Amino acid sequence: MKEFIISKKEFADRIQRLQSVIANENVDAVLVFSTESEPAGVRYFSDYWSSFESTAVLVPKTGDPILLIGPESMTFASSRSKIKKIIKMKDFRESSQPDYPGTTLMNWKELLNDLNIKKIGVSGWYMFPHVIFNNIANVIGKGNILEADDFVRKVTLKKSETELNCLREAARISELGFKAILENIKPGMTEAQLVGVATGSMMANGAEATGYPVWCCSGPNSTQAISRPTHRKVKEGEIIHFSVGAKVAGYSASIGRPVVLGKCDKEMLRFLQTGLDAENMTIDLMVAGTRASDIAKKVHGFIGEKGYKDTILYGPAHGCGQMECEFPFIESSSDFVLDTGMVFMVDIFLAKPTMGFRWEDGVIITNNKAEELSNFKRKINIL
Amino acid sequence: MKEFIISKKEFADRIQRLQSVIANENVDAVLVFSTESEPAGVRYFSDYWSSFESTAVLVPKTGDPILLIGPESMTFASSRSKIKKIIKMKDFRESSQPDYPGTTLMNWKELLNDLNIKKIGVSGWYMFPHVIFNNIANVIGKGNILEADDFVRKVTLKKSETELNCLREAARISELGFKAILENIKPGMTEAQLVGVATGSMMANGAEATGYPVWCCSGPNSTQAISRPTHRKVKEGEIIHFSVGAKVAGYSASIGRPVVLGKCDKEMLRFLQTGLDAENMTIDLMVAGTRASDIAKKVHGFIGEKGYKDTILYGPAHGCGQMECEFPFIESSSDFVLDTGMVFMVDIFLAKPTMGFRWEDGVIITNNKAEELSNFKRKINIL
Repeated sequence: MKEFIISKKEFADRIQRLQSVIANENVDAVLVFSTESEPAGVRYFSDYWSSFESTAVLVPKTGDPILLIGPESMTFASSRSKIKKIIKMKDFRESSQPDYPGTTLMNWKELLNDLNIKKIGVSGWYMFPHVIFNNIANVIGKGNILEADDFVRKVTLKKSETELNCLREAARISELGFKAILENIKPGMTEAQLVGVATGSMMANGAEATGYPVWCCSGPNSTQAISRPTHRKVKEGEIIHFSVGAKVAGYSASIGRPVVLGKCDKEMLRFLQTGLDAENMTIDLMVAGTRASDIAKKVHGFIGEKGYKDTILYGPAHGCGQMECEFPFIESSSDFVLDTGMVFMVDIFLAKPTMGFRWEDGVIITNNKAEELSNFKRKINIL
Repeated sequence: MKEFIISKKEFADRIQRLQSVIANENVDAVLVFSTESEPAGVRYFSDYWSSFESTAVLVPKTGDPILLIGPESMTFASSRSKIKKIIKMKDFRESSQPDYPGTTLMNWKELLNDLNIKKIGVSGWYMFPHVIFNNIANVIGKGNILEADDFVRKVTLKKSETELNCLREAARISELGFKAILENIKPGMTEAQLVGVATGSMMANGAEATGYPVWCCSGPNSTQAISRPTHRKVKEGEIIHFSVGAKVAGYSASIGRPVVLGKCDKEMLRFLQTGLDAENMTIDLMVAGTRASDIAKKVHGFIGEKGYKDTILYGPAHGCGQMECEFPFIESSSDFVLDTGMVFMVDIFLAKPTMGFRWEDGVIITNNKAEELSNFKRKINIL
């Protein structure tokens, strides 16, 4: 089992690249906010992934960044963070809101004044808590707090070779998770049990965590694009689709596959095949220089021609990196051009009122046919 | 394997109880906000637990509640929610921020005007996004948005018999997860592998999910109160502590245990025994009518007498329900009195610079000695 480690130098480079992006912008610093379930920003700049608490990285225009954490995580954060300076603040405590009597915590006034920060950009803007916004506004004024997601995206959008290797490994382990399902699945097992099989296998094979809560969507639940496993027992003759993803050194991949136990009727087969054809078509179209909206229009056009227009929910692809699903989405409104080093999950989710499925695989954009992170058993799995 | 189901009637009662709480308050509705990693509020009132997206329940002063979801989760939410009326809004979309061209979504102006809501209380206040706050403020004015965590806590604080049964079952499954570790642990296994063993076992034994990311903290990592598993290999003669928790029908329990493989030196044994004695002492003190701060002072006093004052980080206990760690904390500043039907996790985490551990078990407060959710192998496990 090989351990994937991102060097201190690469972390330092990331900070420098963000500082280059903001060098000519009208902010004194960027505050990168993250939570337990949305850890990407802070993980990217510090390698720290909070649990129970929230967290942020403060990157000033020049000088050293600071990791901001809740009161309980100093030993945890110190053992992970590539950012040396770590400060505890009450605003990042867990939701149970302990007081921690006797503990000394930093406040925003002292922190921002110390660093002479009068105007701040915030990344993770759409989940940034109003309470923290207000506490900062009380020091520098609310007009001096701006959205900074775009600054951070300029740094994170194209992946380095180290990042690509983490994603390749995450995809390899995701395949092992799905393989464990194929080897163990039997009618009568519950969705939750099957999720446990995949999760246990991925953790045994080098995952640091799942990339997101693994899904098994069976029968009527197969219509769910986003889901959670239930205690429903899987049956023969129904679609059972799996979304299985491992996390490696902060990077999340995924594979999505439908499975049918026993008999697969003719219309079900045609529906599944249309999705598979749409996935292969999407992958073929994903070449550097292509406009994202053109891909979406062509693929959705193809699905429409087959008579399944109403089964489309989104997509046909989305960015992938530290979050299994990250900016940008490829949809018919996507006004950007694919570039080398971008990574996407091709994600064909289609659902009729009675059944649905997901085909999903990662790709790395190159000047030719995209490099596939996985193509493990990308066929209609009838067991 | 018994499935634990909370009845539609109990969900309807919860809404009614919240409406009773706000009947005489100066708000027209309460908005209960939740996220993937902080799902408790919305789960409590609707049974829905979002993934990737955030979510909220809108409870008007009178009339039916509404579940608010992101654009991708309608089939998922419909299959789970005990609240019939479900509305899709862009503000609850996933962090990758898709546009969903062609999808019709509700806006706040229409929603709040339809229901004649002019003043709103928000629960989940400390994580409530500034962007959503602003979008609501643009309709009703920011002075008409108030914190409402206390209103919701009045409803959730004391657990019903159904809730207690879910917590008892979650504790039973958590024990099975820890048992699987005891049966499989060997020097050379990684922390992540051991987490996989516990997680797989809990999912196979009826958990719907883990209650939080399971921890295995070994050797130097044992000093971490909050953690995540690494690829470090566990060794003989060091403290390896486990926090293992299952989720059942939305309710999260946990057990925390230190384990030593091979030899346990004398001072390590004394330190572990002090923690165990402190846990047993805490449990003995937790009787309805007792002031929470008195418990904290006595237990921390005992730990101090043994010479370990500086190893205390928090506690010695915290609320437990849908979140494994929920309001209120029991600490020396806790100005409340224990009441029957409250549930706590006794959580003795102590750490020196070189080693630490957690003893943790749930208790249900009664008029006599607390009912323990688990006492499985609450002894120093030297294997």
